[in-house]
Amino acid sequence: MAVLEDQELLAEITTNAQRNHSITLMPLIKEVLQRANVKVADLDRIAVAQGPGSYTGLRIGVTTAKTLAFTLNKELVGVSSLKTLAAAYPNTEALLVPVFDARRENVFAAAYQWQAGHLVEVIAEGHYAFANLCQRLADFNQKVIFIGRDSQNFASNLKASDLDYQLASPNFAYPRAMEVALLGQVATPVAIQTFVPNYLRLTQAEMQWLEKHPEGKAHDESYVEKV
Amino acid sequence: MAVLEDQELLAEITTNAQRNHSITLMPLIKEVLQRANVKVADLDRIAVAQGPGSYTGLRIGVTTAKTLAFTLNKELVGVSSLKTLAAAYPNTEALLVPVFDARRENVFAAAYQWQAGHLVEVIAEGHYAFANLCQRLADFNQKVIFIGRDSQNFASNLKASDLDYQLASPNFAYPRAMEVALLGQVATPVAIQTFVPNYLRLTQAEMQWLEKHPEGKAHDESYVEKV
Repeated sequence: MAVLEDQELLAEITTNAQRNHSITLMPLIKEVLQRANVKVADLDRIAVAQGPGSYTGLRIGVTTAKTLAFTLNKELVGVSSLKTLAAAYPNTEALLVPVFDARRENVFAAAYQWQAGHLVEVIAEGHYAFANLCQRLADFNQKVIFIGRDSQNFASNLKASDLDYQLASPNFAYPRAMEVALLGQVATPVAIQTFVPNYLRLTQAEMQWLEKHPEGKAHDESYVEKV
Repeated sequence: MAVLEDQELLAEITTNAQRNHSITLMPLIKEVLQRANVKVADLDRIAVAQGPGSYTGLRIGVTTAKTLAFTLNKELVGVSSLKTLAAAYPNTEALLVPVFDARRENVFAAAYQWQAGHLVEVIAEGHYAFANLCQRLADFNQKVIFIGRDSQNFASNLKASDLDYQLASPNFAYPRAMEVALLGQVATPVAIQTFVPNYLRLTQAEMQWLEKHPEGKAHDESYVEKV
């Protein structure tokens, strides 16, 4: 959670502890605003990581952001969690590949490249078999920098690959709220009510439900209203 | 303030708000440990930014760290605030130049360069006239990346210079506690009682005192014990 004024960071709170008993973000929001010396009414815009990421984390984050934006009548923007990791890395010619482990040798990933000061998506965000992702990256014939805590999980796969790669250092390992805010400042506000997380794949439950209810495939509505 | 386990960030709290009424860091320490789900007794080492920086900020930070390390019998390490800014920037051939504004066209600065995975100090930490620093940097005939919020204050000086330079993006603008901790993990513990901030220049009061008491120049003792 971070509060920025233009490009200045006023306050930021990060927590990655495994045992996190809070099921609501509201106390954290209150605290970070206090530390930033900013009133919630003074906010201009709310930016939230839209995914991919853990289902529960995304639901809580997006629902909290939607609720705040709707009740306070603020602009809302969603920012890709993958792009948040890549955008924190400074200008380089290498391919920037943020990775979240999606289990069973799969990843949520994308590839970006800095081109004339802009971060261009050269492999679209998706749910990839890690081996397939590496093949696609190899086709670029360029140096690859993997970003994100989970890229360590694929160290042995990478050693066996032909890629010219490195893993970004630990200070790039986690998506920072500050970066979500910086990207959110230049993103286009969304329609609050219909805004949904970008899971990049269906949950087990959704897949089973769709198998039994094929007519559901036509729907693409806000999960928040459905639940 | 950050809590790390090896290279994993467990929790981090950053505050840059101008009006900061807290004169003690203890509530913040308690909170970040709670968010990290770590007990103070479980800490192995305390790392603190040793300076340069604001006199008051350094005094509070270093005194708090010394007190904690001494009372809890923990290892203490000091980390350069300038190196903390540079080390967050990933491997590049450019010179990395963290800068703190020291008023009147002066800066606290150093220049670093990544060489074989190590961050090497190529211009020593010091209190420099900004124009002189730029001349020394020009002699390297290499690209220069200025790091830190205050580098914006010298935008017009830089435009008038011959340097091939850029300013690092806003996410590198502030020294991060996480980076202090990462550098602190590989630093050598200090003697707690004699550890002092690295102001890089004397205070006005100290300079006046030394003028009147030239015998004081022979002393180099912990300000904490003297005060």
